[in-house]
Amino acid sequence: MTDVEQTDLSDTKASPDAPTIYVCITCRRAGEPEADPRPGAILAEGTAKAAEGTGVVVRQVQCLANCTRGPSAAVRCNGSWTYIFGGLDAACGPALVEGARLLAHAADGIMPWRGRPEPLKRGLVARVPPIDFEEDPE
Amino acid sequence: MTDVEQTDLSDTKASPDAPTIYVCITCRRAGEPEADPRPGAILAEGTAKAAEGTGVVVRQVQCLANCTRGPSAAVRCNGSWTYIFGGLDAACGPALVEGARLLAHAADGIMPWRGRPEPLKRGLVARVPPIDFEEDPE
Repeated sequence: MTDVEQTDLSDTKASPDAPTIYVCITCRRAGEPEADPRPGAILAEGTAKAAEGTGVVVRQVQCLANCTRGPSAAVRCNGSWTYIFGGLDAACGPALVEGARLLAHAADGIMPWRGRPEPLKRGLVARVPPIDFEEDPE
Repeated sequence: MTDVEQTDLSDTKASPDAPTIYVCITCRRAGEPEADPRPGAILAEGTAKAAEGTGVVVRQVQCLANCTRGPSAAVRCNGSWTYIFGGLDAACGPALVEGARLLAHAADGIMPWRGRPEPLKRGLVARVPPIDFEEDPE
């Protein structure tokens, strides 16, 4: 990340176009014992810290229903595709913020593979098109 | 489904509020040999047929990135949560349409568990909140 890129996003904060990360605070790793705070909550805190000053908005959610592959988070901008990631860990906050910034700069609304942080490559669970998407090849 | 319920949704067709199903037409079941048409494409056709006259919009997409658990589809209305399902089969079109109708009638934007078709229970991959969602419990 450079200061120049951070400046690029600063005007979008809290606007509908702001790149937004939703972190599930209930998530824990499948098969691991109960912990307090939960790994998802720790990830949410780390993501919020990593997002400071970047223009990326971080929201906590109770459940993204990706429980078998947590910790989980979703990333989108208004008008972009939405990406859901799983198998994250407490240290993935900066990766999520970098992914959100890549998405915010993508004119086609698609998070580029090149330059995407590794946890957002191996942890990709699904993606969903923007609300007005149409792709009828027939 | 009753005729009364069908009437409830008919005005929303093609509006931004229309319940919409995105079906991945590239999907095939993991480990199964190549087939033409692909299982996802067959599912998309069956879903479109099941949606006729219901007000539910069906869109084909090239990839929902849920490739290890296809066939896949996503369901949402404007303002609702978005649901991603995997492990579907060619016969799941009516289940997807019923799920979209349940979501369209849900005042809280959450697809009810009760009454949800079985393929949309066991096949739930993830869900993502609406764009303006806020849930900060602190």
